[in-house]
Amino acid sequence: MIDTLRHVFELNGFVGIETRAVEPGSSLLKKGETSKEIYLLSRLQEVGHEDGKPVEDRLGLHFDLTVPLSRYVVENSGHLAFPFKRYQIQKVWRGERPQEGRFREFVQADIDVIGNGELPDHYEVEVPLVMVSALEELRAYGLPKATVHANNRKLSEGFYRGLGLSDIEGVLREIDKLDKIGADEVTQLLVKECGASLQQAQACLELAQMTATSGAELTEGFNWLCSKHEISQESEAYQLAAQGLATLAMIVDEADRIRPGAVIADLKIARGLDYYTGSVYETFLEGAEGLGSICSGGRYDNLATQGSHTYPGVGLSIGLSRLLSYLLNQVGAHASRVSPASVLVAVWNEADRASSNHIADALRQRGIAADVAPTAAKIGKQIKYADHLGIPYVWFPAQAEAGESEPQGDQVKNIVTGEQVEASPVSWTPDSLYAQQQVVIGA
Amino acid sequence: MIDTLRHVFELNGFVGIETRAVEPGSSLLKKGETSKEIYLLSRLQEVGHEDGKPVEDRLGLHFDLTVPLSRYVVENSGHLAFPFKRYQIQKVWRGERPQEGRFREFVQADIDVIGNGELPDHYEVEVPLVMVSALEELRAYGLPKATVHANNRKLSEGFYRGLGLSDIEGVLREIDKLDKIGADEVTQLLVKECGASLQQAQACLELAQMTATSGAELTEGFNWLCSKHEISQESEAYQLAAQGLATLAMIVDEADRIRPGAVIADLKIARGLDYYTGSVYETFLEGAEGLGSICSGGRYDNLATQGSHTYPGVGLSIGLSRLLSYLLNQVGAHASRVSPASVLVAVWNEADRASSNHIADALRQRGIAADVAPTAAKIGKQIKYADHLGIPYVWFPAQAEAGESEPQGDQVKNIVTGEQVEASPVSWTPDSLYAQQQVVIGA
Repeated sequence: MIDTLRHVFELNGFVGIETRAVEPGSSLLKKGETSKEIYLLSRLQEVGHEDGKPVEDRLGLHFDLTVPLSRYVVENSGHLAFPFKRYQIQKVWRGERPQEGRFREFVQADIDVIGNGELPDHYEVEVPLVMVSALEELRAYGLPKATVHANNRKLSEGFYRGLGLSDIEGVLREIDKLDKIGADEVTQLLVKECGASLQQAQACLELAQMTATSGAELTEGFNWLCSKHEISQESEAYQLAAQGLATLAMIVDEADRIRPGAVIADLKIARGLDYYTGSVYETFLEGAEGLGSICSGGRYDNLATQGSHTYPGVGLSIGLSRLLSYLLNQVGAHASRVSPASVLVAVWNEADRASSNHIADALRQRGIAADVAPTAAKIGKQIKYADHLGIPYVWFPAQAEAGESEPQGDQVKNIVTGEQVEASPVSWTPDSLYAQQQVVIGA
Repeated sequence: MIDTLRHVFELNGFVGIETRAVEPGSSLLKKGETSKEIYLLSRLQEVGHEDGKPVEDRLGLHFDLTVPLSRYVVENSGHLAFPFKRYQIQKVWRGERPQEGRFREFVQADIDVIGNGELPDHYEVEVPLVMVSALEELRAYGLPKATVHANNRKLSEGFYRGLGLSDIEGVLREIDKLDKIGADEVTQLLVKECGASLQQAQACLELAQMTATSGAELTEGFNWLCSKHEISQESEAYQLAAQGLATLAMIVDEADRIRPGAVIADLKIARGLDYYTGSVYETFLEGAEGLGSICSGGRYDNLATQGSHTYPGVGLSIGLSRLLSYLLNQVGAHASRVSPASVLVAVWNEADRASSNHIADALRQRGIAADVAPTAAKIGKQIKYADHLGIPYVWFPAQAEAGESEPQGDQVKNIVTGEQVEASPVSWTPDSLYAQQQVVIGA
């Protein structure tokens, strides 16, 4: 999966980077809820006197690849060509409660485009489309069709302000819970936690229930909702919403032109993290919506800053371990065999091991992965070893029969089909079905 | 480098595994000197009351891939086919003092073969030869020729005991310093720290100075040294040494037959770690001996145990980050360009971006990595952006000239050579010299 994603990201001109596993506590503590899950490090010598050191001055394991990216961009701004398109596939660590599909150590695959001072809007449609094409490649491993659900923070904020609400972060936080706890509970929370009247709360839910597959449908629906709730198109609040509306309409229309059905507008998408300033994305799998979003992100204008200078960016992140867990446990994807070798060369007796090694080396030089039997056990035992590793072919080196001076020719047996043929290590080629270790779905 | 190593290991039938970054303190504390360098983890909630918990019960980052392997083998012994051939390429962490070529976070690439209760000797020559063939592939990136220097713990121990010495680990520890501090200082340390007489110490150094490229030369030299120091071939000590001598002679002769010059016997090789029980290996680069061993390992009979059951193994480990640092800083290896894209598609104006995207997608579908200009800036600026990223080709989409209804054909320019030709995204192919991002040596 990592190789596949890397291939797609590079085809699209993203530069791969890798950053160290640790970041300073001061950076890690800045990201709200997720910050509570950090793991801090101590050297063995420090054990017993760790308490004196403030968390900000200690090192912790990164819990995402965005904090490291913002440090990387600031540290290397002098050398980078902007917009900087980077991909990064690494382990991250979170001290949350482990459960089905939630791990304390997992792999994320991120792509981001970072501008220097400014960043053109078109990346807000291109970046999610690169992720869609990457996820499309993973369908070979049994992944269902993925759809990106997009929203825009400015659109939501403008609408909430137009309703007369002011605790925008609070409203977004509650709306984010919609799929988990349902409309009734969210309405109650909006009233209780965010100072909304029942009518305001219901308006927020009406917005959250809107989806659209074209810019025209989106604009019409949004404007209808605004007039229903008496939000004037002349108001400052509407002007803010209109910026988000224009970007979101552009994203849906452009995406539809390039890859119909890949991206829809879904106005309940809120994202828990508070650093997004425009587009936000979540991605759901057809028939596996219960898995939640498998690839999320958005546009952030202020994540990386250097004095008053900013590096606005847009990016998405795939939670790869969770996807893999889904493919293994729900879809039944697995490796076609344990060993990467497609051939096990048998050994008639230890004195002949050199000739078996020689055959294996000849095969390897032609790119055919080969192993040699560990001992000159009975041939049945050697075949059993190949079978245990899923190695499909067993190679029998030529043997000088009693009374003959010339050895018989080599033979190779496909232990799956039982077929056995004469073969030479400089010309024989495995059937393509058995040549490579592959991903197989189902039994 | 990782891809290259992975390819070689899989060609040889090694199964790739990856283990979590953490192991229990109790396992990490078992490995002598290196154990002092562990990093322990605390969850944020635990900060302030970490002291109560014994180090053994805490989690720490792994400092090698051998501790995780022994846990993995014991945990999965029921599912594995033995001998289990595994490779593992992962980051490890050590809290040592950072210096040129020494990092606190670095990548190791390990191969090991683990037996169940027993492990045939032939792996003691095959495993180092797989490493040599892997290092041979890295010569394309400027790595000098590598030679494995092999010794055997039993040979050394038998000889030392034959001399009348009993602090075998102590003697090995001092001999291990030979390259760093020289013969005179080692002699003094043997006398001072290991209870050796001056004559005994000098005999240890005579052994350490022996090298051999054939089993016969090794055996002759060793036996001559034994008779010089009156170690009888009838003695128990000599019998122990003879076991090591036979294995080492086999290794040198077998390796010489398969890959002449790849492995030599070098009796000063001691290895700091005390879990090796037979063969030990270090690997040096021609002309870069000062770098020290870049790939080390050995045979261990008791590393992984389950009750009284043992899983003997033999393995070697490449310190990959150190090699990379050498290639970057001493050899001058570097990427041929920053971006993986070989083509930048220009954009005449923002309204035409869709047609530029369309061209880029057509190229990508044919496996040609392509980027699209970030803005419809002046063409000179777009070419400069390509140049900054090292992208060799700039693609100019067809443009409807004033007064013509049909657009002119697309053109593509090699900005390195200046050559510009008409081209179609469904048939054009980059010159192989510029097609892929590559490793280049020198300016």
